[in-house]
This record gives sequence, C-alpha cells and structure tokens, in this order.
Amino acid sequence: MKLLDGKMIAAQIKREIAADVAKNMLDKSIPAPHIAAVLVGDDPASQSYVAGKEKACREVGFLSSIYRFPASIPESQLLEIVDFLNQDSEIDGFIVQLPLPKHINAQKIIEQINPQKDIDGFHPVNVGKMVLNLPGFLPATPFGIVTLLDRYDIETEGKNCVILGRSNIVGTPLSILLSRKTKRGNSTVTLCHSLTKNISDIAREADILVVAMGKPESVTADMIKQNAVVIDVGIHRVPSVESKSGFVLKGDLKFDEVSKKCSYVTPVPGGVGPMTIASLLLNALKAAKKEVK
Amino acid sequence: MKLLDGKMIAAQIKREIAADVAKNMLDKSIPAPHIAAVLVGDDPASQSYVAGKEKACREVGFLSSIYRFPASIPESQLLEIVDFLNQDSEIDGFIVQLPLPKHINAQKIIEQINPQKDIDGFHPVNVGKMVLNLPGFLPATPFGIVTLLDRYDIETEGKNCVILGRSNIVGTPLSILLSRKTKRGNSTVTLCHSLTKNISDIAREADILVVAMGKPESVTADMIKQNAVVIDVGIHRVPSVESKSGFVLKGDLKFDEVSKKCSYVTPVPGGVGPMTIASLLLNALKAAKKEVK
Repeated sequence: MKLLDGKMIAAQIKREIAADVAKNMLDKSIPAPHIAAVLVGDDPASQSYVAGKEKACREVGFLSSIYRFPASIPESQLLEIVDFLNQDSEIDGFIVQLPLPKHINAQKIIEQINPQKDIDGFHPVNVGKMVLNLPGFLPATPFGIVTLLDRYDIETEGKNCVILGRSNIVGTPLSILLSRKTKRGNSTVTLCHSLTKNISDIAREADILVVAMGKPESVTADMIKQNAVVIDVGIHRVPSVESKSGFVLKGDLKFDEVSKKCSYVTPVPGGVGPMTIASLLLNALKAAKKEVK
Repeated sequence: MKLLDGKMIAAQIKREIAADVAKNMLDKSIPAPHIAAVLVGDDPASQSYVAGKEKACREVGFLSSIYRFPASIPESQLLEIVDFLNQDSEIDGFIVQLPLPKHINAQKIIEQINPQKDIDGFHPVNVGKMVLNLPGFLPATPFGIVTLLDRYDIETEGKNCVILGRSNIVGTPLSILLSRKTKRGNSTVTLCHSLTKNISDIAREADILVVAMGKPESVTADMIKQNAVVIDVGIHRVPSVESKSGFVLKGDLKFDEVSKKCSYVTPVPGGVGPMTIASLLLNALKAAKKEVK
C-alpha cells in the first residue's frame, strides 16, 4: 500500500505556481494574481477555511483580500458586493465562502459572480463547460482528486470508478470529470448515493473508489476490492482522549483495515484537503492569466 | 413484454400542449409560441429533422419559421443571425440544426444563443443548470426518455441504470438526469462508453438499460437482465430487400431477441424519436411562458 500524499503534491504544485508567478509575472512587472474571499458571519469552520486559503495565497506570492460581513447582511447588499468584485479590475478571481446565512439565496449569489472570476467553479456556466469539456474553472475538490491521480500516474482509462456521494461540489462533478474523454478521464463511472441499493457490492467492484459520503469511518475493508485505489474525501473531528485537543481527524474510511487492501490510499488529514486548496490556487492563476473567456 | 409507445405518449403530450396553448394563450389573446429553426446547407437528415419539427409545431398550434442558409455562409454571419433571433421579441425560442459545416465552430454558435431561447438545452449555462437541478431547458432526447419512463410510471429510485454511450446530447446528460435527486431520478447510474471493459457484464446488471451507442443491432439478448426496462436511442437505415424503399429502420438493439427478456422496451421507430420532438415542444412552451430566467 502506498499513500497518495496530497500534502506533498500540493506543496509541489505550490512551488510550481510560485516559480511561475515569479518568472512570468513579477519579473515582467505584471502584478501577482490577486484573489478575494467574501466571508459572511462567524462560522468557525468557514473562518478556518478562509484563513487556510489566505495562507496558501501568501505561500505562492498571490495577493489576497478578505471581505468580512456580519451574518445579518441583507442579500441585496451581498449581491452589490459581488458586483463590486466583478468590476474591480485588480481582483482576478474570488470566492464567496459557503454556507451563507439562511436569509440569503446562495444560488442567486453564485449566479451573480462573473464566470471569468468564479475560481470555485460553482457558476452554472462553468459546471456546463466542465460537462462539455470546454475551458472553464473546475470545482476545486474534484479537480484536486484528478490532479492527485495524475501526479501518481494512476491510469483511469477503462477502469471501473465508483463514487459514493452525489453532492454538487464533489461527487457529481467528479463523476463527470472521470467519465469525460480526457487523459485522466475515460473511466466507467458509477455514481452512488443514499438511495443506492447494495452499495457494498458496487463499491467492491471498483478499481478506483472515491468516498464522499460525510460519515466518519463508515467504509470498511469488506467493501474494498483487493489492490483498489481509494480516495477519502471525508474529514471529521472525532472526540478522542488520546489527543491533547480532545479530538482527532478521521475520514469516511476505517483507515486501518481499508488501507491494507489498497494499492493506493489517501490519508486524512493530508490527502484530498491540501489538493483542494492547491486546485483553487491553480484556478486563480488561470483567472489571472485570463485563460478562461 | 410491454412496448414503451413513444409515438402514443408524444401524441398525448401534443394534445396537452395544444389544449394549453388554446386555453391559456389564444383564448386570452396571447400569441401562440413562435419557434425558429436555423438550417445551414442541404444535409438530407437535417432537412428531414427540421421538417419534422415544423410539422409538430403546426400540430400543436405553434408558429414556426425556418431560416435557410447555404453551406457557404461565413461563421460571422451565422453569429449575426443568432443575435438577430436572440433580439427578435416575436421568437420565443430557436434551434440551430446540427451538424454545421466544418468551417463553422458549432460550439461558438451555441454559446451565442440567448440561454432563455435555447430550447435545445445545449448552451453551457443550461447544461450546468441541469447538473445543479435548477430551472432551465433540458436537452430534448434525455428529457424525452425521462418523460416516457414517467408516463409509464416506471420507478427509477434505487434502480441500477446503465447507459451505453456518453455523447453530450444523450448519454452524458441522461446520466445526470437519472442520478439527480428528483422524482424520475435517484437511480444508481453507470455511464459506459467505447473504452468500457466488460460492457456486457455491466449491461446485464441493469434494471434500466439505455442504449445510445449508434451501432445498429449491436445489443444482444445475453446483455440483458431478465425483466429489464430497455430504451433504444439508436435509429439507422439498414438496407432491406423486403421494403419498397430499399431500407428499414433499426435501432441499437437486436429487437426480436432482446424484447423477449424485457419488462418494457421501446420500439424503433416510434419510441424515443417522437419523444424527442415532444420534448422540444415542451421546451418551446416553457420558453414562450418565460418560465426560464
């Protein structure tokens, strides 16, 4: 069993981005990419994600700005802020950190974002371009997973890929990416979800299994084909007396037993998480280079 | 074995549309929906499709206009025509019949269409909205297939659906529709294609099998699970001495042997084809009612 070391690959990608920015932008007096994050309310998880993104920007030499607003901000005002960022020529791309407070229609906010600055890849036009294999922004987590497979040179063509979980930001777009006619696509993909019957039987047929169900340690060794490649998208704080913080991070896999059957497996933490951030940076670089029309 | 009689269901849908137009539009002095087709060149298949669509429009009381251009039309001029139709307030929706001559970038033409008039559902923003389960136009063939399942009250929830063929206009969008969290969705979908291994084994696991590979009579009885629901998207002219015209229409199924194992199966002709046209009319009605923003 080999670990798919997302932390290491993400660090490598960040070095590549930093070198690219230095050589092709800063040395030519072109300003560094500048990305913005809009953070509404004081959800601790959202704050931590945005802080992580800001840190990653600093590491690669990007400029970053965080726009913070109270949870009480009216939807109309948030739409105006999106318009402001759409028009601000100094901002190459931006994200609106989700979830948003209930009085705000998140979909309406997302659709207001200029697709050319939509580095999260959540705007319908970017989702459609992904399906049609046209240039656009790919959602960061599926993009990160495909990149991880690519960096480890894991063949996907003709493989049976099974994805557990059909969310709009992970499972569904990943099912599209892996079945498209592209280098790390061309798989035969089965997309499973809460209403799938015999999920264990289906998982056990997978050459490549991606688990994104959001249930800690729910995937067991009996669901895994010998020598499968297994990607764990879950990340959960599980209480633990053995940790000083009082919790440990666990994925959707029962890692100790599953990993023994895998040819490759992602750890949690240090697998998909860092790849998601690296992919967001790749999208930001693409936006700054105006590669998406 | 029961036939999924697309011709009958399409006729029923057309009567419903005609009644809707009469009651909610004509009787209120609102003009009938008006759709346009842009036809470039003189491909016989394209001419026949467009003629079929025009006939269907007449049957339901829609107005229809056909804009014909020689194959030599420059791309820039076709883009202007699209703009003209985008702006023409009398046209509720339109299609540009594909394929287009090679000197024209079809994708560029499609992206020029105002998504609110894109009754083919091919514009990336409509494709993205389909993925995200937002109101938009669904591509006509997958929409027709789901409608056919619905009219026959065939349960899809929790069923294993296998789709053979991953085209942008049939297989891929249908895989999305059938796995979404909707009434005739919630299936466990496997999308197969030319690079899939063991395609017969996978097909044989299908409760619902959709065949859209474009190879006449290539799916045989050994690929079918007993009592499966089988949908045949193929339509091919096959030479025949028994027919006056010198050819007969065949689907992707070896119908005689496959149909014996099915609980439901679509005939060719008279299955998916008429449903595609009915779905285009449903999209046109939606466009005329300004239900898609």
